[in-house]
Amino acid sequence: MAMLLDGAGWTGMIVLFTDFGVAGPYVGQMKAVLYQQAPSVPLVDLMHDAPAFEPQAAAYLLASMVGEFPSDSIFLCVVDPGVGSRRRPLVARINGRWFVGPDNGLFDITARHALDDGRAEWWEIDWQPERLSASFHGRDLFAPVAARLANGESPPGRRIDISSEYLYRWPGDLNKIVYIDHFGNAVTGLRACKIKKNRIIEVGRHRLAWARTFADVAEREGFWYENANGLVELAANRDRAETLLQLSVGDQVAILE
Amino acid sequence: MAMLLDGAGWTGMIVLFTDFGVAGPYVGQMKAVLYQQAPSVPLVDLMHDAPAFEPQAAAYLLASMVGEFPSDSIFLCVVDPGVGSRRRPLVARINGRWFVGPDNGLFDITARHALDDGRAEWWEIDWQPERLSASFHGRDLFAPVAARLANGESPPGRRIDISSEYLYRWPGDLNKIVYIDHFGNAVTGLRACKIKKNRIIEVGRHRLAWARTFADVAEREGFWYENANGLVELAANRDRAETLLQLSVGDQVAILE
Amino acid sequence: MAMLLDGAGWTGMIVLFTDFGVAGPYVGQMKAVLYQQAPSVPLVDLMHDAPAFEPQAAAYLLASMVGEFPSDSIFLCVVDPGVGSRRRPLVARINGRWFVGPDNGLFDITARHALDDGRAEWWEIDWQPERLSASFHGRDLFAPVAARLANGESPPGRRIDISSEYLYRWPGDLNKIVYIDHFGNAVTGLRACKIKKNRIIEVGRHRLAWARTFADVAEREGFWYENANGLVELAANRDRAETLLQLSVGDQVAILE
Repeated sequence: MAMLLDGAGWTGMIVLFTDFGVAGPYVGQMKAVLYQQAPSVPLVDLMHDAPAFEPQAAAYLLASMVGEFPSDSIFLCVVDPGVGSRRRPLVARINGRWFVGPDNGLFDITARHALDDGRAEWWEIDWQPERLSASFHGRDLFAPVAARLANGESPPGRRIDISSEYLYRWPGDLNKIVYIDHFGNAVTGLRACKIKKNRIIEVGRHRLAWARTFADVAEREGFWYENANGLVELAANRDRAETLLQLSVGDQVAILE
Repeated sequence: MAMLLDGAGWTGMIVLFTDFGVAGPYVGQMKAVLYQQAPSVPLVDLMHDAPAFEPQAAAYLLASMVGEFPSDSIFLCVVDPGVGSRRRPLVARINGRWFVGPDNGLFDITARHALDDGRAEWWEIDWQPERLSASFHGRDLFAPVAARLANGESPPGRRIDISSEYLYRWPGDLNKIVYIDHFGNAVTGLRACKIKKNRIIEVGRHRLAWARTFADVAEREGFWYENANGLVELAANRDRAETLLQLSVGDQVAILE
Repeated sequence: MAMLLDGAGWTGMIVLFTDFGVAGPYVGQMKAVLYQQAPSVPLVDLMHDAPAFEPQAAAYLLASMVGEFPSDSIFLCVVDPGVGSRRRPLVARINGRWFVGPDNGLFDITARHALDDGRAEWWEIDWQPERLSASFHGRDLFAPVAARLANGESPPGRRIDISSEYLYRWPGDLNKIVYIDHFGNAVTGLRACKIKKNRIIEVGRHRLAWARTFADVAEREGFWYENANGLVELAANRDRAETLLQLSVGDQVAILE
């Protein structure tokens, strides 16, 4: 494992980001491949409930979370409704971090934000395993490629260009709810640093003011705040904002003047 | 850890297959035992939502997945509605892989398929821990036995015979839905390699044709395909087959001529 | 990693006990910190569905499970509805085990049971990370402190006293349902060793007799038993007691004379 042994200080890890669900065998089957092909590399389950069939929503979530990880982490990302079709398998290197997954836009917000102040390189994977199932490229294709990167190998494919016009087809911030968490809080695709704290956020028929955190508002009161990953999140103190404010993934939000 | 040190190439792991649920403390308590008694052996969560109280359905699922794992993996399997009764605790060795769990048929399909082209050996565990709870043999009995096997010890029990008549009491392929996954796809107990691709599969009042994968059918259209573990799976492109076709675990399927 | 290297026999681990949910990114983000700051220390997911916003119920659950873990384990515990308010961050050492989390009572039952036959020490954490989010102290504050303890460092704070009057404000045993598990069994805050087996337990309009385990009662019959962690649990053989007996977290139970 060249990459691991080269520097004793390597603190990289393989980070799993999928829509496979936390139950079921798919995550475990993918990990079994990783344990065999890249033994002793830590595996972190970042999300397995990324929005299913929704690479765009997933792209904003992923972009908000990559910054916390060591700069040579390998993100193995599978939100892949087009599996088995002609969509391309990709490797990306964005500000040092590796990304492996389908070319459906999943990495585009991470790359786009990096283009503002960093760089991104792309490879189309042209390696194929001996046996490639039609429906589970996470296990059969993407996991072995992630293991190769963890072992210090080069991306098994050819360099490609992805135009910045293409990367800029989606907005840098998405004014929609992209995820509802375990506590019923609704995460949007908006970076909080882009929005003044005196702004009101409108969702459905509700208007929400900013608060620093839960303990700063009355119980059962809705508010917006900057979540721990830098996104605008709609929440309520000791209540489920999802229910209280009737929120769903995909709902539009508006920033009022 | 003899087994680990003997061959630098040992890539074995302990594979967990239970109906404990992904939430709750039971999986963690079992892993705490394994971390203490077999440190540094990788633990893979294969499934913790195996059909509760349904060793038969679980047996077909398990059999479809063992082939992916290294040949000296140790499967720690707990779907055990009879815990605390007189059912026997077992160790099996089937085509090199170890299995630890209750004798309620959970390993029988794996063994039966192996008998066609391999071999199976059986032990009844006669070791008992100092403290054996009445309801959690996964933690108190089966995990310590799996740890012993990982440490290169022999099965702590006596060899027993299980007759092939007994193993053949269940069919080699089960024409029922045995699992519904996170995406709403319905997995059957039928091996796809046994069924011609021009066959129609009937479930309820629906008749489904074969397709290679999701991208090959229209959106919201139901079909059957060979899933990544070789079983017949009922699915729909970008929709939940469970809802679209009103499917439940236990439903009969028929292969039409 | 002094603590790890000092004794080859150290079998400690960091045990995660949260209400973050098993899905979502929070557990993974916390683990990413631990993998970086305390590499190679085993992480055990004990529970991520501890009762949200209910430190009291969580305290009884936690107390029932700590005894199974090695005596120098580090429990990283986050049920923290007051995050971002002035509640204090704590480290406790109770009978050798470390606990890191908020001072909302989460460790009080563990400490109180220990006071009966052991000892507890307390520290208020006064260290702060460079960046402390308002809502995710599990990742930003408590995980780094747990990593320090795993590395053999002292608690980064000052010793404080917690009076036994304070610790004794909650009862040693709680006659309520504190958790409903994956099988629909209802765990109470009552230690079974405190209750004679000929007692009847009343919940709602149901009266339940004791049984040793599931296999000892008729199918679909409700009963109480000592669960594998020593608590009184209300269950039914091959049925969900939750549904059969209409049970919810918070429901009162009574021990009849």
